[in-house]
Amino acid sequence: MKFNNRNVFISPKAKLGNNVRIGDNTAIYDNVEIGDDSVICDNCVIGEPPNAYYSAKTYENPKTIIGRNAMIRSYSIIYAGTQAGDHFNTGHRAIVRENTIMGHYCSVGSQSIIQGNATLGNYTRLHTNVLIATKSILGDFVYIYPFVCFSNDPHPPSDIVLAPEVGDFTQVAVHCALLPGVKIGKMCLIAANTTVVRDVPDESLVVGNPGKIVGPVSMVKSKEFPGQNHYPWMYTFERGMPWEGIGYDKWKAEQSKINDNK
Amino acid sequence: MKFNNRNVFISPKAKLGNNVRIGDNTAIYDNVEIGDDSVICDNCVIGEPPNAYYSAKTYENPKTIIGRNAMIRSYSIIYAGTQAGDHFNTGHRAIVRENTIMGHYCSVGSQSIIQGNATLGNYTRLHTNVLIATKSILGDFVYIYPFVCFSNDPHPPSDIVLAPEVGDFTQVAVHCALLPGVKIGKMCLIAANTTVVRDVPDESLVVGNPGKIVGPVSMVKSKEFPGQNHYPWMYTFERGMPWEGIGYDKWKAEQSKINDNK
Amino acid sequence: MKFNNRNVFISPKAKLGNNVRIGDNTAIYDNVEIGDDSVICDNCVIGEPPNAYYSAKTYENPKTIIGRNAMIRSYSIIYAGTQAGDHFNTGHRAIVRENTIMGHYCSVGSQSIIQGNATLGNYTRLHTNVLIATKSILGDFVYIYPFVCFSNDPHPPSDIVLAPEVGDFTQVAVHCALLPGVKIGKMCLIAANTTVVRDVPDESLVVGNPGKIVGPVSMVKSKEFPGQNHYPWMYTFERGMPWEGIGYDKWKAEQSKINDNK
Repeated sequence: MKFNNRNVFISPKAKLGNNVRIGDNTAIYDNVEIGDDSVICDNCVIGEPPNAYYSAKTYENPKTIIGRNAMIRSYSIIYAGTQAGDHFNTGHRAIVRENTIMGHYCSVGSQSIIQGNATLGNYTRLHTNVLIATKSILGDFVYIYPFVCFSNDPHPPSDIVLAPEVGDFTQVAVHCALLPGVKIGKMCLIAANTTVVRDVPDESLVVGNPGKIVGPVSMVKSKEFPGQNHYPWMYTFERGMPWEGIGYDKWKAEQSKINDNK
Repeated sequence: MKFNNRNVFISPKAKLGNNVRIGDNTAIYDNVEIGDDSVICDNCVIGEPPNAYYSAKTYENPKTIIGRNAMIRSYSIIYAGTQAGDHFNTGHRAIVRENTIMGHYCSVGSQSIIQGNATLGNYTRLHTNVLIATKSILGDFVYIYPFVCFSNDPHPPSDIVLAPEVGDFTQVAVHCALLPGVKIGKMCLIAANTTVVRDVPDESLVVGNPGKIVGPVSMVKSKEFPGQNHYPWMYTFERGMPWEGIGYDKWKAEQSKINDNK
Repeated sequence: MKFNNRNVFISPKAKLGNNVRIGDNTAIYDNVEIGDDSVICDNCVIGEPPNAYYSAKTYENPKTIIGRNAMIRSYSIIYAGTQAGDHFNTGHRAIVRENTIMGHYCSVGSQSIIQGNATLGNYTRLHTNVLIATKSILGDFVYIYPFVCFSNDPHPPSDIVLAPEVGDFTQVAVHCALLPGVKIGKMCLIAANTTVVRDVPDESLVVGNPGKIVGPVSMVKSKEFPGQNHYPWMYTFERGMPWEGIGYDKWKAEQSKINDNK
C-alpha cells in the first residue's frame, strides 16, 4: 500500500517532527517544518517556491510551517511562506499559495485554491473547488461550500486589491460569487448561487443575483428538529466542534475563563 | 512515448485482466480488479484507501472493480470500494470517492469529483469540473455539464444528508446548482446557470435563479433540423448511443424483448 | 530544491532550446519543441497524445510548439498539436487540449482547461478554473476570470458545435456562463455571475441572468482615480502591458507603423 518511500524528495533543510509519514513521489523543499504525527500523502509538494525562485541568482526558500496532526491528501501544493496550525487537513490537489496564515483545525477541500496572503481563523473549512482571492480574511468556524469564488479586483484589470472578509460562523453555500471588498458579518447564511454585491450585517440571510437580505438567519427552520430554528448553528450542530458533548454556551464560557486567565 | 513502466506501483494483491496497460508513475493498490483491454494512463491512483487506512492498526483495502475496456486518463484517483462497469472513461484528474457504483459506459470528465456512495446508471456522463454530492443518484443516459454542483445539506452545517436524484435522459447544462434533495424527473432540460430549488416533473424545461419550469422540454426547437423539436433527444442524437444506426424505438423494443426473456 | 533531474522523461524526438529547465517527474513526448530560456516545472506533461495514440497501430505524435521564455507550472498538461507563442505562462494543473493556437504572452491559470481547437490572441489570460470550449475564439488582451464557462452545444446532446467568440480587450468576470455561439464584441465588461445569452456589441456592460446590456462600459467609474472612467482600461492599466511606460495611444501608433512597413 502507501508509504513505500518511492521517489520521495526531502530537503536536508526541512525539519520533520516525530511520526511524520511522507507519501510516494512527494517533495518537501527547503525550510519546511512539519509537526508531529502528520501525514503528507503521495505526490504532494510542501514548500513550493514562489516565482522569485526561478529568476533569483541567490534564493532562500521562506519558512513553511505545518502544525501537528496534519492530513494533507495527495497532489496538494503548499507554497513556501505559508503557515497552518495543528490538525490541518486538505483534500486532493488543494493549493495554498504563499504567505497564507491558517489557524488550527482548518481544512482546504479537493481542488480548492487559496491565492496567497490570505488569513483563515480556527476551524475554518473550504469545501471542494473553492477559490479564495489574495488577501481575503476569514474568521473562525467559517464554512465555504463548493464553487464559491472570492474576487478582489473591483474593475478588472486594475491595480486595486479589495479582498472580501467573512465573519465568524458564517456559511457561504455553493456557487456564490463574492464581489471585491464585500464584508460579510458573523453568523450569516449566503444561499446557493448568490452574488454578494454589498456588505452584509451579522446574522443575515442573503439570496439571489444580485444578493438581497431576505431576513434574519433565524428564519430558517430546522429539517432535523421540526418547529425549531437551525441557526445560529452552534446550538444545533456539534460534530467535530470543540463544544461537542458540552454545548456551545458552556464551551464559550470556558474559553472566556481561559482567556481571562491569560 | 507512454507506458515505459517507469515508477509504477502495482500491489501483488491486485488482479489485472488481459492486455491491461498501466501508465508511468501510476499506483494500483490492494484488491483492485481491472478488466481486459483497459488503459490506466500515467500518474493515476486506483484503489485509493479511504481515511480508515491512515489510523487503523489493521487495514484491508475494500475491493475496487473497473470493468473491461476502461480508459482512465492521467492523474485520476479512484477510491477503494468503488465499482465501474465496462467501458468506463475518465478525463484527467477525475476523482471518484469510495463506494460509488457506476454502470457501463459511464464517463467522468476532467477534474470532476464524485464524493462517494453515489450511484450512476449506464451511459451517464459527467463533463468537466462537475461535483456530485455524496449519495446522489443518477439514472441512465444522464448528462451533467461543466461546473454543475449537486449539494446535499439543507442548512449547512448539519447532520442531514439529502442528495439529489436525476432521472434517465435528463440534461443539466453548465453552471447549475442542485439544491439538497431535489428530485429531477426523466428527460428534463435544466438550462445553464439554473438553481434547482424544488422537484421537477418529467420532460420539463427549467430556467433561472430560482429555477422555474417554463414549459415542456419539447418546446425547444432544433437548430439542426429546422421546424423540428430537439427533445426528447433520443430521437435526434445517436452518436455513441446503443441505438446508433437503428433508432431509439427499435433499440428500446429489442431491450424489452431481452428483458422479457430473462 | 527543484530541477534535480529525478524521474524525468524526455523523448529523443523532442527539441529543447538553450537554457530550458525541466522539472522532476515531467514527461516531454515526441515532436515537442520548446524555445530558449523556458521553464517546465515538476510533474508536467508536454505533448500529451490525443486519443488516437491508444488505439492506432502506427502513431506519430503531432508537433507541439512552446515558444521562448515559457513558464509552465507543475502538473500542467499540454496536448500534442498545440502551439503557444513566446512568454507562455501557466498556473498549476492547466490543461490545453490538442490543436489550440495561442499567441504571445498568453496565460492559462491553475486548473483552467482549454478543450482543444481553440484560438487565443496575444496577451490573453485565463485566470483560475476557467473552461474554454472546443473551437472558441478569443482575441487579444482578453481576460477571463475564475469559474467562467464557455459552452458550445445549443441543445445538448447534439452534433452541433457553436463556440463563443470574444473580442479584443473584453473582460469576463467571475462565474459567468457564455451560451453556445454568442459573439461578444471588443472592450466589453461582463459582470460577475452573468449568463450571456445573446450577442453583445462592442463596449457594452452586461449584467444578470439572463444577461442584459445595462449601458456602455464607460459608465463604470474608477475607484482608483475618482471621477474618471475605468474603461476602456487600456488607458487606466499598464502593468505588464506592451504600452507600459508609453501609454496605449503611442504604443498603438507605433504598432501601426510597424504593420505599415511590413
